[in-house]
Amino acid sequence: MAGTLTKSPLAPAFFPDLPPVDGVMFATVAAGVRYSGRTDVMLAKLAAGTSIAGVFTKSTTRAAPVLDCQAKLGGDTAAPAAILVNSGNANAFTGKNGQASVTAICDAVSSACDVPVNRVFTSSTGVIGEPLAHERITENLAVLNDSQDASAIEAAAQAIMTTDTFAKGAHQTVQIDGKNVQIVGIAKGSGMIAPDMATMLVYIFTDAVFEQSALQFLVAEISDRTFNCITVDSDTSTSDTVLMAATGASGIDAADNQNFADALHTLMLDLAQQVVRDGEGATKLVEVCVTGAVDDKIARTHALAIANSPLVKTAIAGEDPNWGRIVMAIGKSGAPADRDLISISFGDVNVATKGWVNPDYVEANAAALMKKQKIDITVDLGMGDGTATVWTCDLTHGYIEINADYRS
Amino acid sequence: MAGTLTKSPLAPAFFPDLPPVDGVMFATVAAGVRYSGRTDVMLAKLAAGTSIAGVFTKSTTRAAPVLDCQAKLGGDTAAPAAILVNSGNANAFTGKNGQASVTAICDAVSSACDVPVNRVFTSSTGVIGEPLAHERITENLAVLNDSQDASAIEAAAQAIMTTDTFAKGAHQTVQIDGKNVQIVGIAKGSGMIAPDMATMLVYIFTDAVFEQSALQFLVAEISDRTFNCITVDSDTSTSDTVLMAATGASGIDAADNQNFADALHTLMLDLAQQVVRDGEGATKLVEVCVTGAVDDKIARTHALAIANSPLVKTAIAGEDPNWGRIVMAIGKSGAPADRDLISISFGDVNVATKGWVNPDYVEANAAALMKKQKIDITVDLGMGDGTATVWTCDLTHGYIEINADYRS
Repeated sequence: MAGTLTKSPLAPAFFPDLPPVDGVMFATVAAGVRYSGRTDVMLAKLAAGTSIAGVFTKSTTRAAPVLDCQAKLGGDTAAPAAILVNSGNANAFTGKNGQASVTAICDAVSSACDVPVNRVFTSSTGVIGEPLAHERITENLAVLNDSQDASAIEAAAQAIMTTDTFAKGAHQTVQIDGKNVQIVGIAKGSGMIAPDMATMLVYIFTDAVFEQSALQFLVAEISDRTFNCITVDSDTSTSDTVLMAATGASGIDAADNQNFADALHTLMLDLAQQVVRDGEGATKLVEVCVTGAVDDKIARTHALAIANSPLVKTAIAGEDPNWGRIVMAIGKSGAPADRDLISISFGDVNVATKGWVNPDYVEANAAALMKKQKIDITVDLGMGDGTATVWTCDLTHGYIEINADYRS
Repeated sequence: MAGTLTKSPLAPAFFPDLPPVDGVMFATVAAGVRYSGRTDVMLAKLAAGTSIAGVFTKSTTRAAPVLDCQAKLGGDTAAPAAILVNSGNANAFTGKNGQASVTAICDAVSSACDVPVNRVFTSSTGVIGEPLAHERITENLAVLNDSQDASAIEAAAQAIMTTDTFAKGAHQTVQIDGKNVQIVGIAKGSGMIAPDMATMLVYIFTDAVFEQSALQFLVAEISDRTFNCITVDSDTSTSDTVLMAATGASGIDAADNQNFADALHTLMLDLAQQVVRDGEGATKLVEVCVTGAVDDKIARTHALAIANSPLVKTAIAGEDPNWGRIVMAIGKSGAPADRDLISISFGDVNVATKGWVNPDYVEANAAALMKKQKIDITVDLGMGDGTATVWTCDLTHGYIEINADYRS
């Protein structure tokens, strides 16, 4: 399964060189949850005092591990903590058995790692509706606990992959009061979805000092401008999880530091765009920027309507600057727009101004832009100051191949 | 363009034999609006006293002919009327020129056919953003007026096609007080969209007697259960139009006749399903029935979330009974659902009951059902009495081929 897909043409040239983060260690194992011949469980151990923040899918059918993580956020941070993630099985739509598996795993991690059970966070990603063989995980915990390594984050990024065609990581260093704090993050996701909705998982680690509530606020706010602004196919996972852990080991408080917030935004946007770059079948990374909306929320509604439109996405796959389909997507979104005020550009080529084709528009110029790997679509609605930017990929035969033929 | 696509495997065996409707005549012409070697304009003339009702796209970027039709509904019905439709150019996103073209066509029809201008209804379907060469239409009006024929409705159905792979028609006869009234209808549409969003148009004719307001109420109400319950790709056209004309020539009042309403529902559902059967790239007709929702509106939200999900539609293309993706779609819709109350069936094969796989489920049984051309998905939410049924098709390589490669 993993490894059988061709690497995305939009993949970065290599996995970045991620430094250790003081207070965080990793281990991985090939537990055979579903895959064979590859690692499929990762355990991250976090030093005492680590604050953990989380952002999760809004799906009403969200998986048992997500519900468990949500319930555990915000407790006392004095004790050490752990994050355990398996790939291959999402433990979603598994009824009462699903919660039983989460409990079994959390109890086992707690015992093996000497961490309170309310400080154990788990995620599962992979096929849904099948019972999770959690004993394959719990019987490996001693090994995972004994092989912890502060530099094993790339291995962790590999262990959480499902239909991903490349491991995803990012890194920022922030100088605060003359000292460096580190932020590193890993992600999995091949669009909003992966095999059978297994979907996006993100883990971010820093040695900066944060109160949990301040970290939660920051992660939620930036997620809204990054992970919540990407779409591959408009489908929403039962398992989406972003967890951020601040160990505080550097002794440097970053709670109100704008440079830290900016660096974290850069890192989260980088990981979000890596997920889009690994979108199933993707050959183009598309940035949709909407300006001139009545407010930011309306701008976002229009931007997502464009980014989710199968007609817009197939036109991009065909390298066709088909701006008519952009007008259609704006019209269907239901949010306020005035046909006769809309302006549209591909890159720096203005196609239409105020509801009518630009008289100087030469289709060959726009068509040349469409051959690039990165496509920029800008829409001005001419009504106000609201703006939004979202990222998506094109819709290609590759998407059909992966999703029509995957399980059968 | 037309004629280059392979006929849908879901097409009916033949175009139905449609009887003349007293008070309605048709003519078509090859005006060369954009296509060559085929008819592309149809004119229907309607006897004095004809009531006309309409239902239109809710797009905020709807085309000039749609706005013009909407403004003209509900006026005095004493004079004769006319409906003129061209294919090849949608006259959408054409700014002030768009309205000027509509005015030019309506004025010309009014003169050539001796019909008041406020009784001339027009539709345009095809490429958008290009000026409509309306003189190619107006210069053919004398020919169209001179060649009217009560039996030319199949030719009319052909003239309004764009990427349709077959002409669409349906017929019902209703006995009222021992006498027959006729209802005939034609449609175009290859999903909600056709080349460059040109999309669904429907024209229905009856010789029954109706006040305009009663006809409008009936058409709007039934459209909500038929044309508004189909989706090919979630994209919404700028031009969707349903017009129904009741000539009254039979002298039989059908305003409060339940048999007439039932027959009209059957006819409209037939045409709606023909549009789905001609969905771009479709190989399966899919009926999604949601029961047990808190109310009908919530049932519809879930049904459309399932029917619009690219993951559900690609699984159906792959003949994979992937019920996990149905759970995902329910979860993402945002409407009330309880994971542990959901039951799912493919045809008569129950896959999951109350949030967990049916212990008697045998995947081979569901997989066998998925090989049929008609797929029935039933979801019971276990929460109330709300129900909804919608129709869609699968998402295949054919959709990508048509839409990624169409214009370029």
